[in-house]
Amino acid sequence: MDIKEFVLKKAHEAREGARNLARTSSSRKNSVLAKMAEALSIRSAELIAENKKDIEFAEKKGLSKAMIDRLTLTEKRVEEMASGLLEIAQLPDPVGEITNMRQRPNGMAVGRMRVPIGVIGIIYEARPNVTADATGLCLKAGNAVVLRGGSEALHSNRAIVTILREVAQAEGIHAGAVTFIDIPEREAVMEMLKLEGIIDLIIPRGGEGLIRAVTENSRIPVLKHYKGVCHVFVDRDAELAMAEAICLNAKVQRPGTCNAMETMLVDKLIAPAFLPVVLKRFSDAGVDLRGCPATRAMFAGIKEVTDADFRSEYLDLILNVKIVADMDEAMEHIAIYGSAHSDAIVTTNYDRAMRFLREVDSSAVLVNASTRLNDGYQFGLGAEIGISTDKIHARGPMGLEELTCTKFVVMGNGQIRD
Amino acid sequence: MDIKEFVLKKAHEAREGARNLARTSSSRKNSVLAKMAEALSIRSAELIAENKKDIEFAEKKGLSKAMIDRLTLTEKRVEEMASGLLEIAQLPDPVGEITNMRQRPNGMAVGRMRVPIGVIGIIYEARPNVTADATGLCLKAGNAVVLRGGSEALHSNRAIVTILREVAQAEGIHAGAVTFIDIPEREAVMEMLKLEGIIDLIIPRGGEGLIRAVTENSRIPVLKHYKGVCHVFVDRDAELAMAEAICLNAKVQRPGTCNAMETMLVDKLIAPAFLPVVLKRFSDAGVDLRGCPATRAMFAGIKEVTDADFRSEYLDLILNVKIVADMDEAMEHIAIYGSAHSDAIVTTNYDRAMRFLREVDSSAVLVNASTRLNDGYQFGLGAEIGISTDKIHARGPMGLEELTCTKFVVMGNGQIRD
Repeated sequence: MDIKEFVLKKAHEAREGARNLARTSSSRKNSVLAKMAEALSIRSAELIAENKKDIEFAEKKGLSKAMIDRLTLTEKRVEEMASGLLEIAQLPDPVGEITNMRQRPNGMAVGRMRVPIGVIGIIYEARPNVTADATGLCLKAGNAVVLRGGSEALHSNRAIVTILREVAQAEGIHAGAVTFIDIPEREAVMEMLKLEGIIDLIIPRGGEGLIRAVTENSRIPVLKHYKGVCHVFVDRDAELAMAEAICLNAKVQRPGTCNAMETMLVDKLIAPAFLPVVLKRFSDAGVDLRGCPATRAMFAGIKEVTDADFRSEYLDLILNVKIVADMDEAMEHIAIYGSAHSDAIVTTNYDRAMRFLREVDSSAVLVNASTRLNDGYQFGLGAEIGISTDKIHARGPMGLEELTCTKFVVMGNGQIRD
Repeated sequence: MDIKEFVLKKAHEAREGARNLARTSSSRKNSVLAKMAEALSIRSAELIAENKKDIEFAEKKGLSKAMIDRLTLTEKRVEEMASGLLEIAQLPDPVGEITNMRQRPNGMAVGRMRVPIGVIGIIYEARPNVTADATGLCLKAGNAVVLRGGSEALHSNRAIVTILREVAQAEGIHAGAVTFIDIPEREAVMEMLKLEGIIDLIIPRGGEGLIRAVTENSRIPVLKHYKGVCHVFVDRDAELAMAEAICLNAKVQRPGTCNAMETMLVDKLIAPAFLPVVLKRFSDAGVDLRGCPATRAMFAGIKEVTDADFRSEYLDLILNVKIVADMDEAMEHIAIYGSAHSDAIVTTNYDRAMRFLREVDSSAVLVNASTRLNDGYQFGLGAEIGISTDKIHARGPMGLEELTCTKFVVMGNGQIRD
């Protein structure tokens, strides 16, 4: 069978699975998730053995240490996958909720019912845990999943999917609900991306290269996360100790994440009191600082920041510092250089807090809180399938609700159109 | 200037317009809409004169009568455009609403604020009224619009846009908020569709050919309406008079619309009592009937329905009739042949009504009401920009809310990530 036919057949199986899952009750879905978690735990030795094959191959191919680390399954990581599924089982089921039910003048009641999207394609790189996490979230929201992991993790993913499918089938769920494209050819991804009308949504998870390639080639809607170029603006009326704590946290608590701060913008009126102290702390914490001329005049021995720096997502202990005339200049900077991900203001001024909240156009806008808090768990959504930097369908952390859509439901008693 | 540069420059102007509009108050937007309406009314002679040029050219080119009718502006049609804008001014502004504001365990409050999408591209065919309608809806929701109408309507559209832009500028709105691609080359559309990150959303309005071409070539998310292959299922427990009224209305009240019925599915237990009467009425109303073998055995002289008929959107007085064993067969038929647009059941049975509502996966699912009621006005959304047959972002009639997105807003008092 050629690759095109193979992928099409798989997608059709997923479609069947989706129709079956859409009719499955919450309690059945939750018990399937619990049994999947149990099976992963019990069979962890099997998973680790299959994972070894991937690791050996990755070492032969000379993949980076970081990549091999992401690829590696340990007893603890398998336990984390299992407990992730249990957590998903405990979240409320979004499917079936009816909102905005209103009586119309002609007597019919019109509302919106939350329903699964259908078939969701997940295209990801080397992390095998995505296989279990994405399956759990899609299944709970009533969607079939078509999984396409990186070829480096083929043995690991195949082993995880085998277990998940066995449990699904034993529990009376159509096996197509968990569909895995288990061939390594890249062409398989290209074929997936053409299946408009069979696959309803694509969520790519990985580096910028993967995401751009998927977006450019897909005829199916894509929900994606490009990059996080995040800002904290320290207003002239900021409380100094709070501003210091928030800026430190936003940069150093976990610099490798998308919601860590890239650029600290400081109002010129507060800069003399604030900057020397906080820059000393950054410097002590090993942060590589890059400043505008005014910053460098105030704090010696740091590099000059460039235009390219202002556009970079560092994912590392590097920070741009810029002194601005006022909040308007700060917001202008964010509009030009930011990636509309996570941007914060520190201030005690009510008017400026409200203006910043309203006018900064980012997936999360925060007053007096660290950008690092832009996260599904922190925001109370439960587990997240990713953070969307798009504006269509979902923006910011995406939980179960973002894996559903709505349809209009009408309860009439004979209404017709005049 | 080449076409690529021209379109890029226009899109950048729209982007500026969008930033300006996002900060404009509701009362300002409403007064701009009211003044636009007034200006269209006052200057209708000018619009009709420009429209004459398009009509003359269309007649020379030998365009169809139906197309020339869609293209024609009359005093009455200009008045309708103006009153459309006034209606939009009276709708509540979705922008700025904050929902789901909740206190998190660490004390910060997290909610979602409704905000404009940004820049919306509208690609349409010969109807000049779309120019005013789409501008009104986009503007009210705080979005800049990039208009690209059919080349047949170039003079008409240019005249309408000139008036709308003059009013916008006089009222202090950035002219980029109403951007018009006023060159006839098709290449301009292709260039528009590449401007990911500058244009946020594309809404094509027109025939299936236009919509497919836009979807296949766009790197920007597209909200679209393919086709409406709509069903009414008459259950064994239907009230006969109600079923008759709903089926007649769904087919003949305005057959040229997307939510008119294509196929009537009838439970075999009720068929002998229901079919002969209703088919006689359809026949008297001039409907071309196509039946399954069982239907033809019951009602003489009608054509046999084909598989292709079941997949057709008629937009005309043609109806397929099929007798089914039960609701499951009806739902199976809808899943296979339908276009997930508008599907209705007529029944007095509570369990089947609830199952049909839940299990039929269409943009609107109706119990005891005509499919013709799937419409923004009927559903209480006010004016609509179209009906989406997609599942991502918007499904069914799209009003002002569907032209917005949300962002997360966080009000903290010093929260950081542990």
